Amino acid sequence: MVSSPPPNEDGAKPAYGATTEWLRNEGAACDVVLSSRVRLARNLAAHRFVPQSDRTQRQQVVSLSQQAISEIGSCVWIDIHRTNDLEKQLFVERQLMSRQHARGKLAGGIGGPDEPRGLAVSLPDERVAIMVNEEDHLRIQCMRSGLALSEALAAADTLDDELEARLEFAFSPRFGYLTACPTNVGTGARFSVMLHLPGLKLLGDIDKVKRAAEDMSLAVRGFYGEGSKAIGDFYQVSNQTTLGKTEQVLLQELERDIIPRVMDYERHARRTLFEKRKSTTQDRIMRSVGLAKYVQLISTEEAMEHLSMIRLGAAIGMLNGSSMQAVNKLFLLVQPGHLQHRAGHALTQHERRVERAAVLREYLRDVG
Amino acid sequence: MVSSPPPNEDGAKPAYGATTEWLRNEGAACDVVLSSRVRLARNLAAHRFVPQSDRTQRQQVVSLSQQAISEIGSCVWIDIHRTNDLEKQLFVERQLMSRQHARGKLAGGIGGPDEPRGLAVSLPDERVAIMVNEEDHLRIQCMRSGLALSEALAAADTLDDELEARLEFAFSPRFGYLTACPTNVGTGARFSVMLHLPGLKLLGDIDKVKRAAEDMSLAVRGFYGEGSKAIGDFYQVSNQTTLGKTEQVLLQELERDIIPRVMDYERHARRTLFEKRKSTTQDRIMRSVGLAKYVQLISTEEAMEHLSMIRLGAAIGMLNGSSMQAVNKLFLLVQPGHLQHRAGHALTQHERRVERAAVLREYLRDVG
Repeated sequence: MVSSPPPNEDGAKPAYGATTEWLRNEGAACDVVLSSRVRLARNLAAHRFVPQSDRTQRQQVVSLSQQAISEIGSCVWIDIHRTNDLEKQLFVERQLMSRQHARGKLAGGIGGPDEPRGLAVSLPDERVAIMVNEEDHLRIQCMRSGLALSEALAAADTLDDELEARLEFAFSPRFGYLTACPTNVGTGARFSVMLHLPGLKLLGDIDKVKRAAEDMSLAVRGFYGEGSKAIGDFYQVSNQTTLGKTEQVLLQELERDIIPRVMDYERHARRTLFEKRKSTTQDRIMRSVGLAKYVQLISTEEAMEHLSMIRLGAAIGMLNGSSMQAVNKLFLLVQPGHLQHRAGHALTQHERRVERAAVLREYLRDVG
Repeated sequence: MVSSPPPNEDGAKPAYGATTEWLRNEGAACDVVLSSRVRLARNLAAHRFVPQSDRTQRQQVVSLSQQAISEIGSCVWIDIHRTNDLEKQLFVERQLMSRQHARGKLAGGIGGPDEPRGLAVSLPDERVAIMVNEEDHLRIQCMRSGLALSEALAAADTLDDELEARLEFAFSPRFGYLTACPTNVGTGARFSVMLHLPGLKLLGDIDKVKRAAEDMSLAVRGFYGEGSKAIGDFYQVSNQTTLGKTEQVLLQELERDIIPRVMDYERHARRTLFEKRKSTTQDRIMRSVGLAKYVQLISTEEAMEHLSMIRLGAAIGMLNGSSMQAVNKLFLLVQPGHLQHRAGHALTQHERRVERAAVLREYLRDVG
């Protein structure tokens, strides 16, 4: 259990109410790129990979990792076994750990809530999260707002060096870092950016971009990563292979070439919408504003769709400046775990829909 | 052409902007019954019915009728041949004449804009309208707000007597008043009420009520009468037969028995919605409020659907008092002819959608 929740940007209130660092919406690319993430997969040498190990071995990995992380001191160790389901859901929604890790399920369906594993998070900024005994012994994640993969990689590399000074990682001079799944062998790095592509979606060009990305061996996923579908026009784009290219080459391809091109497409689509379909586009945006300001019951999915439209309106200057801030907070606040955390107890689906509508109305009061 | 449009309730502005008498929403039944209408079909003796006559004969009927109406003095004669298409559309939307009469089309598709015909309207209240040479030589209409068929019939009878003092009507001691279509023979009277039945619609019970009404030989039609489908949960209920029953019996059946029963069903449905499906119902109403306050482009049909929900919210006290007034005005203001009258010129469909949205936003500013 987290002994004391991190303070948020609203100051005193110690709750997971405010936006996290990666949703601060900073940088020149933030009209299209919400956030950048670098993830490194690392495994301890002389220890079996998680799927091949037994509980005792996995417990050893947790102990060694916790020790190293605590020596470095930049992240708070969170005892997953002492967090309740609502808190776990909160970490998942804040993208600090995977759903699979929250459940303690290993590949092949073995494991469960008592599975030896861990989580460490840099607080209060939440820029760094380390999962212990997810698919690999260590999954190091560094997040940044906007398009900032280089910065995220630099932070990840520093942490990687600090860990490697204390732990021996499985490394092959021929293949590079060894990982449980062959697709991660090599640098062990995955780069991903969260994109907001309402323009391409509204123009019907999103599938073209997805196909082009997939032709370049990039994965295109939904807001919640692997296996999730796109809701609210948010897409995660990431590299699929890590073998055979250096981190720098992979990163530069994405950050200097591919993502800027997608940004150009999206910005062009937005201009087209506002030049050639102005009233239809304004109508869609303002309908979302009106609905979100008056709705009484709403699902996460529908809320995200309206937030996407409001974000588009804010990005192109149709809505006032406070709109973007409100939307960024709401991305998290409308999620089930956050709603229940706010209420202080578990809520039924119906109660969540009522609460979600109330949160939308409250945070969008001044939007228009 | 109407030499000077009637003043409206807003005072000085001489435009068809305000609500008409039958939309004033007065009386104990007005939560469910918008308006009551009595229509008498009359034909001049010794003159062929409209469908069997030639132009010269129809012109004679117009002259005789105009003379009688002008002597009585309660209605203004409107020269249809000098009204433009937009003005005709305005009269149709205000239910002062039928679409067929506006076009000048007779049964069998003969006739056209130059067809000899007339229209007389009591101004500024618009409670009385007389069509000359529609299906019958004279179609006398008296409208009242709320459930007030007796009052409307009394007014129609008075006018009928005044006309009969000046014109000889075709009458058979055995059949009663003779009319072009056999279904109108007898009293020549048709009674109709405009009902707002959102509760029965939302509960899925509307078809049950429609079938029951049809079993009692009542016709159930949409907002615009014959041939129109129900939009925004508004239904016109009227008697289908006029032969074999006195006006008083027909009227009492409707006003004292059938309509009060439908009102009970509807009120019961609304109570059920607010007791058993409160949050869903509130959500539907408030979504309509939000949409209507922010929409930028909207069709007549969608506008009527939202107005129906807002009217329901006002009727059950969920929305403030000004909501009902705003909705009553908007029933007419969102119609194509009224939008164009307001703009002062013809509008394309797209322009109407833009204007309609602007009118909704303006009139619903204080609703909530």
